[in-house]
Amino acid sequence: MGRYDLALIGFGGVNRALAELISRSGERLAEELGFALRVVAITDLRAGSLVDTDGIDLAPLLAAEPGELSFAGRAGGSADPRNEWVIREVPADIVVEATFTDPTDGEPALSHVRWALESSKHVCTTNKGPVALAGRALKQLAAERGVGFEFEGSVLSGTPILRTVERMFAGLEVTGVQGILNGTSNYILGRLEEGVELSAAIAEAQELGYAEADPTADIEGHDVQLKVMILANEVLGADLRREDVFCEGISAITPHEVRDAASKGLRWKLVGSAVRQEDGSVDARVAPLALPAQHPLAGISGPVNAVAFHTDLLGTVTVSGPGAGRIETAYALLSDIIAIHQRHADDDTAPTRPVLKETHRV
Amino acid sequence: MGRYDLALIGFGGVNRALAELISRSGERLAEELGFALRVVAITDLRAGSLVDTDGIDLAPLLAAEPGELSFAGRAGGSADPRNEWVIREVPADIVVEATFTDPTDGEPALSHVRWALESSKHVCTTNKGPVALAGRALKQLAAERGVGFEFEGSVLSGTPILRTVERMFAGLEVTGVQGILNGTSNYILGRLEEGVELSAAIAEAQELGYAEADPTADIEGHDVQLKVMILANEVLGADLRREDVFCEGISAITPHEVRDAASKGLRWKLVGSAVRQEDGSVDARVAPLALPAQHPLAGISGPVNAVAFHTDLLGTVTVSGPGAGRIETAYALLSDIIAIHQRHADDDTAPTRPVLKETHRV
Repeated sequence: MGRYDLALIGFGGVNRALAELISRSGERLAEELGFALRVVAITDLRAGSLVDTDGIDLAPLLAAEPGELSFAGRAGGSADPRNEWVIREVPADIVVEATFTDPTDGEPALSHVRWALESSKHVCTTNKGPVALAGRALKQLAAERGVGFEFEGSVLSGTPILRTVERMFAGLEVTGVQGILNGTSNYILGRLEEGVELSAAIAEAQELGYAEADPTADIEGHDVQLKVMILANEVLGADLRREDVFCEGISAITPHEVRDAASKGLRWKLVGSAVRQEDGSVDARVAPLALPAQHPLAGISGPVNAVAFHTDLLGTVTVSGPGAGRIETAYALLSDIIAIHQRHADDDTAPTRPVLKETHRV
Repeated sequence: MGRYDLALIGFGGVNRALAELISRSGERLAEELGFALRVVAITDLRAGSLVDTDGIDLAPLLAAEPGELSFAGRAGGSADPRNEWVIREVPADIVVEATFTDPTDGEPALSHVRWALESSKHVCTTNKGPVALAGRALKQLAAERGVGFEFEGSVLSGTPILRTVERMFAGLEVTGVQGILNGTSNYILGRLEEGVELSAAIAEAQELGYAEADPTADIEGHDVQLKVMILANEVLGADLRREDVFCEGISAITPHEVRDAASKGLRWKLVGSAVRQEDGSVDARVAPLALPAQHPLAGISGPVNAVAFHTDLLGTVTVSGPGAGRIETAYALLSDIIAIHQRHADDDTAPTRPVLKETHRV
């Protein structure tokens, strides 16, 4: 059995959940998947960086409170994240990128991905910025270097969306996609339906941990806009920039409008859509829509997300599931690693290292 | 480019739709899929049988009215379906089985599948009977003969359900499935919600072509029971017989009950479920349930079907789409053929025949 050595870039909720999965269930997963996983480097803005090419012992790191974790003073550790150095120089097979992304330039995630691909390392990321803003260039770079670039978690966390198109729809033509791509705004619309005012619904969503301290990206549709770009580009082969995607959020909707629509059997939803036009171009947009009850997205409630695929032979197929969550997003990364393995198991980048019985250092 | 020669067993709506797809879009599909499809035999209870190992010219057959088609008198044709002879003796690569199935013994579909596998031919079928009642034995026979046995269309027509588990859920544990697996009963429950009496709703469903002349299998849950067996056995690794699956249909539900539940935000649905128990066994049942609005199946309306997969790391992921339809089910067969190609492209059963430019006989 082979093994992949991982560099975890960012050690917030998601990569920490992945580390927990590897630490707790690594042996069971290895038996099922046919390969083992080992973490050889971790970087984090707050904790610094930690490198051990013999494999980092994860248990003590996971035992520490997230806010109190520091790599400084540990063997191979530093208070400095040293992201570029770790990504380029540490001999990892796969760089697992789960930091954060600026919606206008994709940074710092974009640089992390690019450095890794330039170093001929496989990459998986949960960040939508690099995929939405530079997906085509990054995919080309990955192809040139013969490595994998996977990003299922950039849309609907671990719920399989991009890979559903790739693996399930051979022989079908997808003519358009419509999605509920942001759980926070969907939760808030549900509360408006129940008569709660927007500001109170936002405060609730913040208390529940759905919404950020600054909820603008959720409320004004900017988060959905990037996801629509990914769907348009990946599913429909478009090459859209951010300014090509019309974007209207939910801040102008009143509880009265939402309840009035509900009384007529309609449900307001913030819908991101990308639809092939007759001239072959793709119209992509984000806007609130009052959907009839029988629309496949009308019943998607609360923090659940969904994508409806409109196809030629099969009509509409809809996949719904979690759109966020640390474990759910960590699963997206695991599914990416599995995809990298499946695609590259026969070439030179496949793991060739023997697995040692003792993966933890004494 | 290679080619698969097909024997179509049954030439009702589904295999006819597949023949139309091959006839109209075969070249485009071949370009996309990397292999061509040719029909070398067709059998049908009413039309008889037709064999041409140089490839049947489909266009004239498709031009005939379905009820008036007869193979007798054509070159290679007979009024006799000759199913066993065609399946065993005609040199096809893949037997495409779309006849019908008795819910108690799976026949005649079960024999068709068995004959084909015994003859070392790949098989795909849309019939749930053979899969539900003899899936394990047939899969073993296929494995012994080194051929494929695919049956995505046995549950939710072409909507990917069985293959979603196989291709999307690596590393996940599926702890249970719940499904709306019969469009007729789901349509009728929706009409009861709107105040229509059961008998009137059944008559409507018959008029719309959803329900059979004898609607018992739809109304009493027997159709769902077989599909639950397939889900329990395929997804959860159970080995259930029909008597292991408790089955209650919707005939005892009144419009009053359904509307009363709706007024409380609950929706009655006929739910087929299979859930792993603490002792490792699988509890499988068919029963009407009043689901709360936020349940992933509550919003599934009309003839749409859906399956909710409950998993350890990803929570609940739901796939919904068409549960019937001739083109949708023909796509299930196409997706099965693609799966057979992907799995067997490297072994001896892969198509080795060169594709001739002229696939139709003069």
